[in-house]
Amino acid sequence: MIEKVFRDPVHNYVHVDHQVIYDLINTKEFQRLRRIKQLGTSGYTFHGGEHSRFSHCLGAYEIARRITKIFSEKYQDSWDSHENLLTMVTALLHDVGHGAYSHTFERLFDTDHEELTRQMITNPETEIHQVLVQVAPDFPDKVASVIHHTYPNKQVVQLISSQIDVDRMDYLLRDSFYTGASYGQFDLTRILRVIVPVEKGIAFKRNGMHAVEDYVVSRYQMYMQVYFHPASRAMEVLLQNLLKRAKFLYPEQKDYFALTSPNLIPFFEKQVTLQDYLALDDGVMNTYFQVWMTSPDIILSDLAQRFINRKVFKSVIFSQKNEKHLGIMRDLISQVGFDPDYYTAIHRNFDLPYDFYRPDAEKPRTQIEILQKDGSLAELSSLSPLVHSLAGTRQGDNRFYFPKEMLAEAGLFSEKNHAFMNYIQNDYFIYGEANDC
Amino acid sequence: MIEKVFRDPVHNYVHVDHQVIYDLINTKEFQRLRRIKQLGTSGYTFHGGEHSRFSHCLGAYEIARRITKIFSEKYQDSWDSHENLLTMVTALLHDVGHGAYSHTFERLFDTDHEELTRQMITNPETEIHQVLVQVAPDFPDKVASVIHHTYPNKQVVQLISSQIDVDRMDYLLRDSFYTGASYGQFDLTRILRVIVPVEKGIAFKRNGMHAVEDYVVSRYQMYMQVYFHPASRAMEVLLQNLLKRAKFLYPEQKDYFALTSPNLIPFFEKQVTLQDYLALDDGVMNTYFQVWMTSPDIILSDLAQRFINRKVFKSVIFSQKNEKHLGIMRDLISQVGFDPDYYTAIHRNFDLPYDFYRPDAEKPRTQIEILQKDGSLAELSSLSPLVHSLAGTRQGDNRFYFPKEMLAEAGLFSEKNHAFMNYIQNDYFIYGEANDC
Amino acid sequence: MIEKVFRDPVHNYVHVDHQVIYDLINTKEFQRLRRIKQLGTSGYTFHGGEHSRFSHCLGAYEIARRITKIFSEKYQDSWDSHENLLTMVTALLHDVGHGAYSHTFERLFDTDHEELTRQMITNPETEIHQVLVQVAPDFPDKVASVIHHTYPNKQVVQLISSQIDVDRMDYLLRDSFYTGASYGQFDLTRILRVIVPVEKGIAFKRNGMHAVEDYVVSRYQMYMQVYFHPASRAMEVLLQNLLKRAKFLYPEQKDYFALTSPNLIPFFEKQVTLQDYLALDDGVMNTYFQVWMTSPDIILSDLAQRFINRKVFKSVIFSQKNEKHLGIMRDLISQVGFDPDYYTAIHRNFDLPYDFYRPDAEKPRTQIEILQKDGSLAELSSLSPLVHSLAGTRQGDNRFYFPKEMLAEAGLFSEKNHAFMNYIQNDYFIYGEANDC
Amino acid sequence: MIEKVFRDPVHNYVHVDHQVIYDLINTKEFQRLRRIKQLGTSGYTFHGGEHSRFSHCLGAYEIARRITKIFSEKYQDSWDSHENLLTMVTALLHDVGHGAYSHTFERLFDTDHEELTRQMITNPETEIHQVLVQVAPDFPDKVASVIHHTYPNKQVVQLISSQIDVDRMDYLLRDSFYTGASYGQFDLTRILRVIVPVEKGIAFKRNGMHAVEDYVVSRYQMYMQVYFHPASRAMEVLLQNLLKRAKFLYPEQKDYFALTSPNLIPFFEKQVTLQDYLALDDGVMNTYFQVWMTSPDIILSDLAQRFINRKVFKSVIFSQKNEKHLGIMRDLISQVGFDPDYYTAIHRNFDLPYDFYRPDAEKPRTQIEILQKDGSLAELSSLSPLVHSLAGTRQGDNRFYFPKEMLAEAGLFSEKNHAFMNYIQNDYFIYGEANDC
Repeated sequence: MIEKVFRDPVHNYVHVDHQVIYDLINTKEFQRLRRIKQLGTSGYTFHGGEHSRFSHCLGAYEIARRITKIFSEKYQDSWDSHENLLTMVTALLHDVGHGAYSHTFERLFDTDHEELTRQMITNPETEIHQVLVQVAPDFPDKVASVIHHTYPNKQVVQLISSQIDVDRMDYLLRDSFYTGASYGQFDLTRILRVIVPVEKGIAFKRNGMHAVEDYVVSRYQMYMQVYFHPASRAMEVLLQNLLKRAKFLYPEQKDYFALTSPNLIPFFEKQVTLQDYLALDDGVMNTYFQVWMTSPDIILSDLAQRFINRKVFKSVIFSQKNEKHLGIMRDLISQVGFDPDYYTAIHRNFDLPYDFYRPDAEKPRTQIEILQKDGSLAELSSLSPLVHSLAGTRQGDNRFYFPKEMLAEAGLFSEKNHAFMNYIQNDYFIYGEANDC
Repeated sequence: MIEKVFRDPVHNYVHVDHQVIYDLINTKEFQRLRRIKQLGTSGYTFHGGEHSRFSHCLGAYEIARRITKIFSEKYQDSWDSHENLLTMVTALLHDVGHGAYSHTFERLFDTDHEELTRQMITNPETEIHQVLVQVAPDFPDKVASVIHHTYPNKQVVQLISSQIDVDRMDYLLRDSFYTGASYGQFDLTRILRVIVPVEKGIAFKRNGMHAVEDYVVSRYQMYMQVYFHPASRAMEVLLQNLLKRAKFLYPEQKDYFALTSPNLIPFFEKQVTLQDYLALDDGVMNTYFQVWMTSPDIILSDLAQRFINRKVFKSVIFSQKNEKHLGIMRDLISQVGFDPDYYTAIHRNFDLPYDFYRPDAEKPRTQIEILQKDGSLAELSSLSPLVHSLAGTRQGDNRFYFPKEMLAEAGLFSEKNHAFMNYIQNDYFIYGEANDC
Repeated sequence: MIEKVFRDPVHNYVHVDHQVIYDLINTKEFQRLRRIKQLGTSGYTFHGGEHSRFSHCLGAYEIARRITKIFSEKYQDSWDSHENLLTMVTALLHDVGHGAYSHTFERLFDTDHEELTRQMITNPETEIHQVLVQVAPDFPDKVASVIHHTYPNKQVVQLISSQIDVDRMDYLLRDSFYTGASYGQFDLTRILRVIVPVEKGIAFKRNGMHAVEDYVVSRYQMYMQVYFHPASRAMEVLLQNLLKRAKFLYPEQKDYFALTSPNLIPFFEKQVTLQDYLALDDGVMNTYFQVWMTSPDIILSDLAQRFINRKVFKSVIFSQKNEKHLGIMRDLISQVGFDPDYYTAIHRNFDLPYDFYRPDAEKPRTQIEILQKDGSLAELSSLSPLVHSLAGTRQGDNRFYFPKEMLAEAGLFSEKNHAFMNYIQNDYFIYGEANDC
Repeated sequence: MIEKVFRDPVHNYVHVDHQVIYDLINTKEFQRLRRIKQLGTSGYTFHGGEHSRFSHCLGAYEIARRITKIFSEKYQDSWDSHENLLTMVTALLHDVGHGAYSHTFERLFDTDHEELTRQMITNPETEIHQVLVQVAPDFPDKVASVIHHTYPNKQVVQLISSQIDVDRMDYLLRDSFYTGASYGQFDLTRILRVIVPVEKGIAFKRNGMHAVEDYVVSRYQMYMQVYFHPASRAMEVLLQNLLKRAKFLYPEQKDYFALTSPNLIPFFEKQVTLQDYLALDDGVMNTYFQVWMTSPDIILSDLAQRFINRKVFKSVIFSQKNEKHLGIMRDLISQVGFDPDYYTAIHRNFDLPYDFYRPDAEKPRTQIEILQKDGSLAELSSLSPLVHSLAGTRQGDNRFYFPKEMLAEAGLFSEKNHAFMNYIQNDYFIYGEANDC
């Protein structure tokens, strides 16, 4: 085919020179990703971060295309160029099962975007499947097996999913670009020069170690500053409590929900097909919430309004030790008339910025390997004091969310506000004598 | 108030140090702009261009803030710093009346986003009005008068609306940044250094003329390459024909539309309130279109699917002279079964990149003035051969849109395709001997 | 050979995968380019513009490498990939004959950097020649013939030297990057996608015309704002008058110059070998000027001090018509004690931003060709109104330079200053009633 | 005065609105900095890094200007705005005593750029002093005392010299920009927003901690990858051995050196005045080396040629433990005819990326303080695990340099090359069984 290009602000151009890729992009399932924001509720904090999963998937594909092109040209002995198409296709499709506000939605309705990605690829009714099957009858299953880490070629699997894969590389660069949080930038050009296929997977040449180090640090910084931002999590909490309320009301108000939010019914009823799932996107969800803003149920309508009009909850950090005392705050909240089930929440955000392979871990990580001059491999953190300091330590915090009305500055319930503020110091929940966070 | 900042990828930070600005941002009418894309259908061509009008309005405000700060510090004799707040507020709110896919929507339903902006500012029921009126009882009217160019201080009016205003400066930089079309970049820093308030409005110092020149060229390039891109206009055409079909069907299928697209009813009925208008956004519209995809009306459902799944029409450029012969193409389209009323369209896109003041013009433009060393003003194109070449000449093209199925490569209706292709050469509609476009 | 890379801030990396290129870079003649600034005296105005011709030559080579790689992959029918090495080598060496402050120096001492480039390539004593001759005995001559436009393959010649060649593309991007004058940026990535070899040379695909247009405008802007900046030309004028004075003094003070500036003697004596030329660079010249600062000749020492310590002359623009009256200013300058031969100068700077082919012109230009869909070529300005406006018109100005001491603000010679200022208005030399510039 | 601006590629514009600053820039001592490269020999490795100390000093000044402007506007209680000028002047002049290739030169000739900076400021003969003394008679001494850390206002001292000062902030951004090593970039805008004057000096607000963290990591990365690059150190080693040879030869060849390198005589004679020092710059040194290339002393001429034509030495890393065995390599080098005194060298490069205050350290560091919400200060590494990992640990390596001719690939002395290579593995000097580096 004649090469097609997509202008891309992160990679300059996304090049498509394979008909299968072009056809996949034009499927309705892939086009649907235009209607789902990559960053979910983070766009409410970083207003620039309004890009879609469509953009990210094109970007992950483009990185895969560049890597496989380099591998095919430079490493014909250690890389099988027949894997190029599979790698590019999987990169393109790796997130195709993501839905609206996935993280919150999945927790409440027990869906799983990885499983849905698999279905979109293997279900004969999807346009995606119909394109894939033309490559070879077993091609859809191959793609699915890469996503599930069961594909025998570990090089392909690690390019798609490991601690430094095309997915993460694109989302760090892209989220950083769009939000304006420059910390996520790293030297992709350099990484593309030092990435090598080795026997058991992927490695990086020793003289590019600092670029990999920089990538790990960038990833850590994006988590700390963008992905774990308290205000974005406040929107997640609102969304979660709003949907929880709808779920609670549903059995008594089936007609109301059938009329106002038809595409959610299968989820309330726990009888979900792939088509039901595909029918949801950010716009549909927000449309429903806007209708709920006039619901007679005062909690449903209030939470919907808070979400749509971005009236975020506030929060404090609490230590594990003090978690058991949070009831004191919940009581005060309840006393001024808020139902704590819907007006408070605990939100935990932790990430392991990097880890070496621990065979006994629940989910052992594929460690990042550095290829030395004499051909031996060394695990990244053994060479980098910077990465060593981040390895194996979970970073993040626990937060307790509550209505802004509880703060003294709101000035609504002077006495209760005052009592409530006694438990807060420097954004921490304090209890007893010491603030031991 | 304590200064608040918003991280912005274009201006680095948007600074808010006035409570009125902060309160306006937090109104539900302003938050609604998060749900309306700045570029409408252009995002379907430039996938990175997914930013909202919310981002753009913050950006226009930020430029206004910087300019008024500079004016207040450097030009106390020629600028009245009491106008700072008015200027910043108007910059923030100048687009607040924009709705989903405004340009197409307005044409079909006879709405007017400028008029709606005025209503949102002056109607006592809006949260925006309620914030504004606290500044002074006549403040909302003042803001509205700036937007309508009737405010007596021409400096303020020109900052908000002229051939080089805060609106255009932000959208060029922003659309360029997000789409990746670097042509829209110009040297804002330099322009902020040379912009000056003069007696009759705004001017630019002679030593910064090249930056202004560059801005005019950038604007021209963005129009030619992004805003007038044939694929984006193909999506506009689809949208327009889809809504036209719905409008046509409505009288006979009122129940269907009441159920599937309740918020459009007032528009079909031509009885629209401000609240009706506010209830529409991109997500709501797309949600309705997704429902229409299963409509029993084959044209409605087909056009809805084409729009949602981005199956764009194709097009040819035609000359004014040949417009009268387009019926030939319409006939062929009709012969293979497409209703030309819904499957073809003429789309005209022209822009006047720059013009000097012509008192007799329909909409005379405020020309760009250059301030010379001896205090005299000179009109930009009299000094710049580059701008002179663009002044007064409308740039753009007329296109005729039709289904992709008509092209030979589609191979559907071999004979008709062949006949159709006879009228196309190098993207032009040709008729008779010469292609005189 | 194993690919070598050079980190480059403009092109990210310069890749070297051919031993000949690597060996050429390591010759002493090429390394000498590190000691010659690309922008000559412009670095005294744009302090960031301190990069060397070494950097620029690597950059021009890198663009040539990318283009020939693309041509070899995509256009095997119309491009002969045996020309790749020749193209890359010529791009690398195209400026190797440049000396310190070339433009000024050449005018005074009648040298010619193009001729010297030829000598460095063809003279058997140079390391460059010794590397080249290993490719093939006639390879040095081939390289020289490309530089002299006599090589039969016009594609190669135009890549090296035409209105849009690797030299200009690199220097615009590079000078823009280093000076901070963003106007010089254009979309190289896009141009690399649309450049094509055609029968008679090089063309650009129609869908990339706007990128070429942008390049032409960028070039124009860099000339107007950076290359023709009055302060840089003031330094050129100082340099020229300083060397003129040395030349004048030489016959009487041969010993003085032999001691203080040995490498200039061959130039004073007009008996210059290639080795003499190679022995000069910016550092050597400045070292000599620093010694001259203590010369007993008051004009030589004063001009040397002004140059080394950047005490620039001032200037006015004059019209062709008024040139004959400049004697009035010279007289006043003379009256306060400055020798007008060394303390004034006329400096003309004009450029033709673009032109189409004019067979009768003194130096006919190779016009920029646009390749249309049907394979025909069209000259750029026939398609682009923007370029049309710049075509064929020389842009620039004439300036008359004089000591800063003549300005009123210097306040040295009150009466004469006053008389002098009467002839200046808005940076123009005025004479008689009207300022008709 | 009317504000003057300098276009700067790093800070966009350097603004000068104080006559003292403008006059200082125009002194001959400051203009001399144009002739001294900021990065010394690093420009031979990173060809883009050719910027001068002039550029860096303007940049450090600009950061100081921005900070003091912010402090004066926002922190009138804790910052004395009378210190603004002193801070800006000191930032501008902090490096004015730097000479050509300072680090190498100072070691050999026992000069000290800090002491020379003091002299340029306090010596009544310099133009700098003459400008400064017009501010106030004790102003030069004040400036000098800031540079020597004895000025009582610790805020001013820390802005000029601490672990995060205007000097470091500018050189990281600038060296990163010019070399193309993107690792040095950090978020200056953010740091300018969170920097605060506190009682004992300078601190950074808690919500900007990640930007400070990023700065520390960037600094570490620039050291590891740019400043400690083995090839740049190879050039330093060449330079040092070259000057060592000249020093050795001088007593016997006084006439030769008086003729070829007059400005070095005072240094050979150890009788150096400030004027002698000012007469040296990069161009002067290189001019001398070019003359030495034809010296009859074979070592002097050979080393001069290697330096001028960039024929770098090669190196191996060695462990402290193995240092005592390096004699083996020196012997082999000697056996093929190289004098190890001039053809080998040990080069140690270590840096302490960050440290907290250790009262007992030789040079205790001013630690970076984070200002918490309740007004208390916390040392950076106590809050940041990333910085904690870098604190207090010296990073770098020891290298042994030798002629490239010793490597097997040179193929000159087959047997000795072979013997030599036996001691090298993966860039390390190995001795005995284990490579325990």
